Amino acid sequence: MNTFEITYLVTLLEGEDINEKVESICLEQSVELPRALLDGHAKEEIVGETVYKEKRREGEYEVVIAWPIANLGGEVTQFINVLYGNISLKPGIRITGTDWTELSDLLNGPAVGMKEVRSRYQLSDRPLSATALKPVGSTSAELADYCYQFACGGIDIIKDDHGLANQVNAPFLERLNACVKAVDKAAEKTGDRSYYYPNITATPERTVERYRKAAEAGADGVLLCPHISGLPTMHLLAQMEINLPIIAHPAFSGQLTTHKTKGFTPSYLYGQLWRAFGADYVIYPNKGGRFTLDTDECQSINRAARTVDLPFKTSFPMPGGGIKLSNVDHWIAEYGLDTTFLIGSSLYEHPEGIKQAVQKLRAKLMTS
Amino acid sequence: MNTFEITYLVTLLEGEDINEKVESICLEQSVELPRALLDGHAKEEIVGETVYKEKRREGEYEVVIAWPIANLGGEVTQFINVLYGNISLKPGIRITGTDWTELSDLLNGPAVGMKEVRSRYQLSDRPLSATALKPVGSTSAELADYCYQFACGGIDIIKDDHGLANQVNAPFLERLNACVKAVDKAAEKTGDRSYYYPNITATPERTVERYRKAAEAGADGVLLCPHISGLPTMHLLAQMEINLPIIAHPAFSGQLTTHKTKGFTPSYLYGQLWRAFGADYVIYPNKGGRFTLDTDECQSINRAARTVDLPFKTSFPMPGGGIKLSNVDHWIAEYGLDTTFLIGSSLYEHPEGIKQAVQKLRAKLMTS
Repeated sequence: MNTFEITYLVTLLEGEDINEKVESICLEQSVELPRALLDGHAKEEIVGETVYKEKRREGEYEVVIAWPIANLGGEVTQFINVLYGNISLKPGIRITGTDWTELSDLLNGPAVGMKEVRSRYQLSDRPLSATALKPVGSTSAELADYCYQFACGGIDIIKDDHGLANQVNAPFLERLNACVKAVDKAAEKTGDRSYYYPNITATPERTVERYRKAAEAGADGVLLCPHISGLPTMHLLAQMEINLPIIAHPAFSGQLTTHKTKGFTPSYLYGQLWRAFGADYVIYPNKGGRFTLDTDECQSINRAARTVDLPFKTSFPMPGGGIKLSNVDHWIAEYGLDTTFLIGSSLYEHPEGIKQAVQKLRAKLMTS
Repeated sequence: MNTFEITYLVTLLEGEDINEKVESICLEQSVELPRALLDGHAKEEIVGETVYKEKRREGEYEVVIAWPIANLGGEVTQFINVLYGNISLKPGIRITGTDWTELSDLLNGPAVGMKEVRSRYQLSDRPLSATALKPVGSTSAELADYCYQFACGGIDIIKDDHGLANQVNAPFLERLNACVKAVDKAAEKTGDRSYYYPNITATPERTVERYRKAAEAGADGVLLCPHISGLPTMHLLAQMEINLPIIAHPAFSGQLTTHKTKGFTPSYLYGQLWRAFGADYVIYPNKGGRFTLDTDECQSINRAARTVDLPFKTSFPMPGGGIKLSNVDHWIAEYGLDTTFLIGSSLYEHPEGIKQAVQKLRAKLMTS
């Protein structure tokens, strides 16, 4: 029987027994019945099986459970359910890993991936820069003007702010066309090209439509919030053979990693799960920004996104928050060249203006 | 300017200032730029505005912020983003309420609702009973046989276990048809009808297709995990004019309510948000079951699902977990008649068999 393995950090509450707790996970995420009620071999086979259990400290265990592939019925949504459906309602269970090898028929990872992004943009051996067009409330013309300034300065990637949807001031199609034109115009002027990624976060059917429109209009990639449009929608986009790279944004995902004994580790969610579901770049809240991961967690995300040990193309880590022109050298030294640095406000507020700020940023990236 | 209001419980970390923290929410969930960078009136208008702030205890405040409707651009996904996008990554912010009045053009609530369910099924003035078909791994014939036994006993609602998807043993269409036939056959025999709700949790496009198939096959409603298929997908189903009632299941939602100073209160998530997004029944983890809400939280969910103060049809609260034949009287007294009680394992394991167990359950509901 083919199985896939999930690794858990199991923390015991006062009075809980590790064997009972692990048995309850094996039943809860499969048959949802007491073992005594399972009549016969066929149904016993459906239950998860503990293949590893090791005490890490008092009341805390690392546990690996093997699940029959057949339980998934070939559907990514049922994978999400087996991974963390009902146990999301229980205390003391945190997901730290999955052996993706047996799942690579079901989950296909990024359609493009880090290597092909580098080759498309002819940018090898240096970190990439990215920024966000904002604020919400601006007109398409205003956003396109920012786009032009960023592109003239030589930024690599310009993505929409994830709050830019289809508001009256800057409707999706109008904004898309205006911004594609702006990067084209800048490229004619400078001879160098920036790459525009519109936000396509919307209801699933509209997201698919906007993904097509983005490709038709000549955009270079897209931005998506997988926890708003849905993880299955991101996976669908990555299978559409449109092959525009997807930047995944963490909006609405924070609760999944916030609790040290529940949910997912940040590296599991942003590095492994998002990559498996098709993210070409993974934005995560960088240490020292407005949000709250620590250095080890950020480095673990970087490793998970880039490791060649997973059966998927690699993803670009894209730390956001706390990165400025003044400290980008530090972050390059810390995270390495295979990183796309997302820098927002500090470029907008630079006293010499956006273009000058980006030129200085570019100089730092070119010599790193 | 039209606005809608969200209520927050804001908890301060050591050294945080309430005014700065509230200002940061107002900016983070709109422009994502420092206020000093907003050039002119139009953009200032986009920022959230604090309309109420009251200290509840040391370091804890109730805060109401008004947001421009225009920021949503008419999209439910952008509502989710303004509600809890980036602030999901920050500590000490919990959503406790929304004034839905101004949002009732965007969010439409249940298509059917509690009243019409009662009228369709001609079941007034008593609580409803529901059970789950399981386990995963059974064949369609085995599940249909359980279905028949439950229906002969006189249960009101038979829903698929939320792990039954499209597995080889019981593919969706085969299971659907077999179970609809089973309840029909039981109805011919007993003169009373039970109502079958297949699980349609899948990728968004398949969920929509299965919703149609369920209606065509004569199912009475459907089961959906909105945090797996996506909240926007549930909202879409409720607008499709198929009008099969939707039971919403909490798989993968647990992290959103688990932290006392982050995420959503259980009554907000299960009672308000799910209702706004179209759930006709809201399953929540009952006190005393395998999961962990307390009585007050359960009662708050019941109130939020049923209150006529929201601009939506009412939803049926559907507590699951810890409810047995032996204690259902207690729960009826506690939660009242406008409740659908979800009872699973204790019916399967009853020594006299499923049919007898359900007959006893039915007798209790009829006299309550």
